[in-house]
Amino acid sequence: MFFSKRDLQFNLYQLLDVEQLVQYPYFQDHNRESFDMVLDAAEQIADKMLRPLLTEMDRNEPQLVDGKIRVHEGMKAITRRFGEDGWINATFRYEEGGQQLPATVHNAAAFIFQAANYSASVYPFLTTGAANLIRSFGSPELIDTYTPNMYNGRWQGTMALTEPNAGSSLSDISTSAEPTQTAGIYKIQGQKIFISCGDHDACENVVHLLLAKIKGGPAGTKGISLFVVPQQRVTPEGLVPNGVTTAGVYHKMGYKGAPIAHLMFGSDADCVGYLVGEEHRGLSYMFQMMNEARVGVGTNAAAIGTAAYHASLAYAKERPQGRPIAAKDPTQPQTLIIHHADVKRMLLFQKSVVEGSLSLLLQCGLWADIAHVAQGTDKERAELLLDLLTPIAKSYPSEMCCQTTSAAVQILGGAGYTTDFPLEQYYREARIHPIHEGTTGIHGLDLLGRKITLKGGKAVQLLAEEMSLAIAQAKAVANEPKLPIWAEQLEKTLLKVQQVTGHLLAIAPQNVEAFLADATLYLEMFGITTIAWQWLKQATEANKKLADANADSERHFYQGKIATAHYFFEYELAKTTALAKRLLSQNRATVEMQPEWF
Amino acid sequence: MFFSKRDLQFNLYQLLDVEQLVQYPYFQDHNRESFDMVLDAAEQIADKMLRPLLTEMDRNEPQLVDGKIRVHEGMKAITRRFGEDGWINATFRYEEGGQQLPATVHNAAAFIFQAANYSASVYPFLTTGAANLIRSFGSPELIDTYTPNMYNGRWQGTMALTEPNAGSSLSDISTSAEPTQTAGIYKIQGQKIFISCGDHDACENVVHLLLAKIKGGPAGTKGISLFVVPQQRVTPEGLVPNGVTTAGVYHKMGYKGAPIAHLMFGSDADCVGYLVGEEHRGLSYMFQMMNEARVGVGTNAAAIGTAAYHASLAYAKERPQGRPIAAKDPTQPQTLIIHHADVKRMLLFQKSVVEGSLSLLLQCGLWADIAHVAQGTDKERAELLLDLLTPIAKSYPSEMCCQTTSAAVQILGGAGYTTDFPLEQYYREARIHPIHEGTTGIHGLDLLGRKITLKGGKAVQLLAEEMSLAIAQAKAVANEPKLPIWAEQLEKTLLKVQQVTGHLLAIAPQNVEAFLADATLYLEMFGITTIAWQWLKQATEANKKLADANADSERHFYQGKIATAHYFFEYELAKTTALAKRLLSQNRATVEMQPEWF
Repeated sequence: MFFSKRDLQFNLYQLLDVEQLVQYPYFQDHNRESFDMVLDAAEQIADKMLRPLLTEMDRNEPQLVDGKIRVHEGMKAITRRFGEDGWINATFRYEEGGQQLPATVHNAAAFIFQAANYSASVYPFLTTGAANLIRSFGSPELIDTYTPNMYNGRWQGTMALTEPNAGSSLSDISTSAEPTQTAGIYKIQGQKIFISCGDHDACENVVHLLLAKIKGGPAGTKGISLFVVPQQRVTPEGLVPNGVTTAGVYHKMGYKGAPIAHLMFGSDADCVGYLVGEEHRGLSYMFQMMNEARVGVGTNAAAIGTAAYHASLAYAKERPQGRPIAAKDPTQPQTLIIHHADVKRMLLFQKSVVEGSLSLLLQCGLWADIAHVAQGTDKERAELLLDLLTPIAKSYPSEMCCQTTSAAVQILGGAGYTTDFPLEQYYREARIHPIHEGTTGIHGLDLLGRKITLKGGKAVQLLAEEMSLAIAQAKAVANEPKLPIWAEQLEKTLLKVQQVTGHLLAIAPQNVEAFLADATLYLEMFGITTIAWQWLKQATEANKKLADANADSERHFYQGKIATAHYFFEYELAKTTALAKRLLSQNRATVEMQPEWF
Repeated sequence: MFFSKRDLQFNLYQLLDVEQLVQYPYFQDHNRESFDMVLDAAEQIADKMLRPLLTEMDRNEPQLVDGKIRVHEGMKAITRRFGEDGWINATFRYEEGGQQLPATVHNAAAFIFQAANYSASVYPFLTTGAANLIRSFGSPELIDTYTPNMYNGRWQGTMALTEPNAGSSLSDISTSAEPTQTAGIYKIQGQKIFISCGDHDACENVVHLLLAKIKGGPAGTKGISLFVVPQQRVTPEGLVPNGVTTAGVYHKMGYKGAPIAHLMFGSDADCVGYLVGEEHRGLSYMFQMMNEARVGVGTNAAAIGTAAYHASLAYAKERPQGRPIAAKDPTQPQTLIIHHADVKRMLLFQKSVVEGSLSLLLQCGLWADIAHVAQGTDKERAELLLDLLTPIAKSYPSEMCCQTTSAAVQILGGAGYTTDFPLEQYYREARIHPIHEGTTGIHGLDLLGRKITLKGGKAVQLLAEEMSLAIAQAKAVANEPKLPIWAEQLEKTLLKVQQVTGHLLAIAPQNVEAFLADATLYLEMFGITTIAWQWLKQATEANKKLADANADSERHFYQGKIATAHYFFEYELAKTTALAKRLLSQNRATVEMQPEWF
């Protein structure tokens, strides 16, 4: 198996109590049964349609043929199926053809797709995000014209941001929009690179949510507007080419099943764009999609890490090699490698990262749901926590799953480096996530430079309260002495994070470069602490349920949770010691380094 | 450029004073000029022959066609050139056609080849190791029959150890050798997997140095013997097929230009093997080759890391993106990314790892040379230090260059993930090194379980003396206050390593499993400390020379060395704090974990 359904259920029903959402009118038709049906349906598609193409899609990457990108022919049926079964707009309102499904459950289903075949999962995911932008900020006409065929999977949605001279620096985009005689309609000119699913033959049209600058507008991010730019525009005569041409398809290290395009707008023929919302507010609209996409990228990474973990676990349970260190008699048969402490360490590392990430990611889904349907302080609280932890939810899984897929490769040894096993593919696919949707460096700046001081530090305060609650509950555990110890460790680490934060904020007024120079390391420290909090919660819950668990499988599940928390607190949380040491240092090795000295 | 010649010269002539070797009769014909000529010649071949095929060889991987592995056609000229120019036996005696070149200089040349095109560099490297085994332990007849065509590059040498059921556990090999009527000649039967250059069409014959068990011999490693098993054996009638068939070629994540074969011996026709040295002593002979190969693998990793570092550095110096954190005016032009502290951090990380690794690796070469030509305590000292540090020299670069190539990819962002740049190839090629020539886990066990207690701890004692000398020299520096501080930091870390070692050795008698459970982390801590020692030496030397350096390029070189040492002590050495915390813990999370809990 490439994921653990039991673990998803543990998160949804035990840790998060996702059933609490049905108290809100928006979700009132749902219950555990309907959630379980969603997960079962996702598993079916993942197993029957996505998984079988995992390797094939990697070996047969998209090609540009006669100006059109050809993808694996299996993608036609997959994208259509996602549309027909309602996955693309599952969280939207009934009036829009949606199912009013909680994002938490939708994300859990997406996680299953991603673990089965990451590349294939990307197509519908992007369409959902693009459609969501149109329905949130577009005119009724735009919504009616473009979203129905996105929902049914026939039209692909994209987000078109990056340009050759504007990757991390969006303020420098140069794609232009020139007003026409008709209000809301603009002439678009420019090029975009790295556009995921920007063109392919498994759909009938592509709807780009594109950032451009209206001529004469303000410089920088304040002059960015959002447009719907269809590959073919809708006219009374039907679909008509809209001056969007595909200049190339990128060949990549991994994630090969999804086509990443280089697109030209208005170079050969006129290209029309439809303004979404108001002029010059494009970036703030796009952030809705980007924030969703960022939690989504974290989930992708965790899903790939999960598939790699389970593949290496299965191998470790079957592969005999070597003998117990205390009994090395060569006349005795070899032992399974899962009995070696170093192999268990590499498995625990993976399990602790991927399951710790998943619980944070689903927690983010729950906050998104509450922010969506609740009011007042509940809503504000959920929004702030989600905002604060989005850089962690994106970056911790992205960075760490590069390392966990590496550990998975290592468990298989030479076999893991060959294409006979999927591990090397997971390793390649994991590597994109620290890059797209904002590099890790960008998220470090976001966390330390913006999120920490959000609403005067209120978000951080709320998170500290959440952690303190988990700490208090773990301290009160009487039957497992390790839990109060871990609670104290987390408490100390939290104080250390606060000390580091104070130290850095004090530097900011005099030297903003030094303040932010190690933001990436701050992000790492914050991330480990956040995941430790998740493990404390998981272990507390597992310990509570262990006493009443009768079935062996249930007992093992809970024992595994407690043992993995043990690993995390012993091996991973310890890393914050070194990070704090560095972050509290007054030395500025990186700031002082001069380019010519390299 | 894909490496720094200035850095090689700094290591050879300033740090190591490799010219000291010419005092020994074996090296007496050499001098700095001859060494420089070797480096120049290596650079020429690397530039003209190896580098141009880097990408091509990756895109056109070896294929098995009609039972024969076809490799890139450019490899014929390359292997022949390596032979003709004397690279394969350069370190051997004049009587053998060698040049009595120091291994230190030969390794420096090999480093240039590896940085240019790792896959291409592997072919001659393996032949050298195999030939070295034959000349060291084989009969005069074997030497005369097989080594000349290995030296001239027409015949490929290999080491054939691994079997399907014996990867890390060599004691479990089952390839058998049955004595024939003729002394020294055996019938070989079995199969070997993952044999680098085990078959290919760029050579005329392959000479396998193969481990097998003579029937009726003792169990385990004590029953392993070493054989020369040619693909075609030499007879008075010429070359005759020797029952070695190629069952397959592995398709791999990277390192694609070198063919890795699955071989069958004696399955279709009789296969003859020639015993090397005495029966049952094969593993100890093979360790000569393995130890050389281990330092070689560390060098490969450092070379790939070096090429990635220089590629990402060149990009960072050309790519404008974003603005200084303290001056974000969007109407101003963008700044080069090399000015961002986070990019400098990623460059310093790479520079500190690859240049720190290289100086340790060349130091190992010097010890190998001294062990080869010196006598008495000098020889013993060099042997012990080399033995002790081989697991570090293999594993530190191997593990860390997976991370540094990742940082190089990150600097390029999305571009780094595409095949438009060589970074993604370096990332894939780096990943093999923690696996082959003993996994990192195996080297952890070697260091903690064997090397630390070697000769009653004498090797460790010698290393501590070496480090203390460097510490004393750095403490005495008057004009750069950072050096005495770093010296103290290294001193403290060394004490911490000693404390951890004592703690672990005390556990050994009661619980050998717990003693070795975290050997990989111990290896990591020891590795960082060792590289810190190298940086202290580099910085001390650079500081000394900086005062008299006139040319800007020289000043920048030395300033870069000091700044990189600064980075290493601030960012990398700090990691030992967390490792020590874990290693001193009494908790046994990995040992206690049960397979069924996963």
